[in-house]
Amino acid sequence: MKENEMIFGIRAIIEAIQSDKEIDKIILKKDLQSELSHELFEVLRNYPLIQVQRVPLERINRYTRKNHQGAIAFVSQTKYQRVEDLVQNIFEEGRDPFFVILDGVTDVRNFGAIARTCECAGVDAIVIPTRGSVSVGADAIKTSAGALHTLPVCKEKNIAQTVKYLRACGVKVVAATEKGDKLYTKTELSGPIAIVMGAEDTGVSPEVLRGCDALVKIPILGKISSLNVGVAAGVMIYEAVRQKGDK
Amino acid sequence: MKENEMIFGIRAIIEAIQSDKEIDKIILKKDLQSELSHELFEVLRNYPLIQVQRVPLERINRYTRKNHQGAIAFVSQTKYQRVEDLVQNIFEEGRDPFFVILDGVTDVRNFGAIARTCECAGVDAIVIPTRGSVSVGADAIKTSAGALHTLPVCKEKNIAQTVKYLRACGVKVVAATEKGDKLYTKTELSGPIAIVMGAEDTGVSPEVLRGCDALVKIPILGKISSLNVGVAAGVMIYEAVRQKGDK
Repeated sequence: MKENEMIFGIRAIIEAIQSDKEIDKIILKKDLQSELSHELFEVLRNYPLIQVQRVPLERINRYTRKNHQGAIAFVSQTKYQRVEDLVQNIFEEGRDPFFVILDGVTDVRNFGAIARTCECAGVDAIVIPTRGSVSVGADAIKTSAGALHTLPVCKEKNIAQTVKYLRACGVKVVAATEKGDKLYTKTELSGPIAIVMGAEDTGVSPEVLRGCDALVKIPILGKISSLNVGVAAGVMIYEAVRQKGDK
Repeated sequence: MKENEMIFGIRAIIEAIQSDKEIDKIILKKDLQSELSHELFEVLRNYPLIQVQRVPLERINRYTRKNHQGAIAFVSQTKYQRVEDLVQNIFEEGRDPFFVILDGVTDVRNFGAIARTCECAGVDAIVIPTRGSVSVGADAIKTSAGALHTLPVCKEKNIAQTVKYLRACGVKVVAATEKGDKLYTKTELSGPIAIVMGAEDTGVSPEVLRGCDALVKIPILGKISSLNVGVAAGVMIYEAVRQKGDK
């Protein structure tokens, strides 16, 4: 996180938001209560994608010795895009959308590795949720081998809603899960497609699973392991590339 | 490295070698010259797989404050196996050998990730070279999610020779390389197979490439990236699994 740009102080944060600077997250001192802080909350109403966390003062002090007034904002290193805009543009270009949705991946290295794979495989965009997920920080960009500088990233408040929207647009949404009833290689992945990968520990959330077109599994022939999510994403994404190439 | 077992002092190292303890590497003070050290070199003649490195005294001191007499041996956390033994056993069991050869992968996390994938995909063994490669240490085992506790690992002095041997046994050896002239999905990977993955920076060495049955490439549709070797290995290995399943 250290290489990411931070903004200190409530007034500075309000100005940054209003000048449309892309903010990933704001951390606020637990018991912060002032006129200015109410003004901040007023402004934040119009920016539902900005995550706000209340934390103990000591945690804020760990980030800086500057006069932070109990508030730090973390500036995003990317300009997040909207799924709606991208889908429409891609269809207008006469192409099939190819999305990868990360439902709760939290490890920055995994995120970076998946972004790298996406860039190599010609994926149009990665979709991540606003909460409980990674964001595009310096470490992720480094692991992505620079892919995150060019690959569009969409941040969505509600992944289940995004899945619904994509399906309504004619995009097939397929989740990789151990609970899958079909082999990923026996499922049609060419055409407009969104592949959903889940969190490292708990996988894709039940709500999102329920909304998908198909749940597929990658065969595990060994006894002790499960695949790393970065590798599993690579296997899924390149199976789609294979099928698209065969079409 | 810190969690790995180390043996200090020349006499102790000689005894460890002679009692068939598996040693990965020995580091020796640059100008070490003594009767005992000559005895060590005499013993090492019979153990060509143990890597010996001459280093400045300061580097040895960094590992321990104990009386090391200018010599530290690193005990392997695994009992390395021989390709010859494994191939014969697998054929005798009526199965097709499925090997993954890492020609110079140096990143411990990549090695661990690949081992994890191999265990999941039912790969019989990983082959690594004695020099210029990773070995089975604590970090690799951790990243492998325990796979390296059960997956056989073979350490070979000369990978080109190993490739030759495998081909003589009827194992098809296929290297993944940007210089590949065929798509990996259009190449027969079912049957007895060994997949060769190269170093993070330079890829598979020219000598090994020349000895393979086929050079294949994974399509890169993006503009800026190449795949991470752990992901590329996963894509290759699971394409073999797909083809084996379709047979």
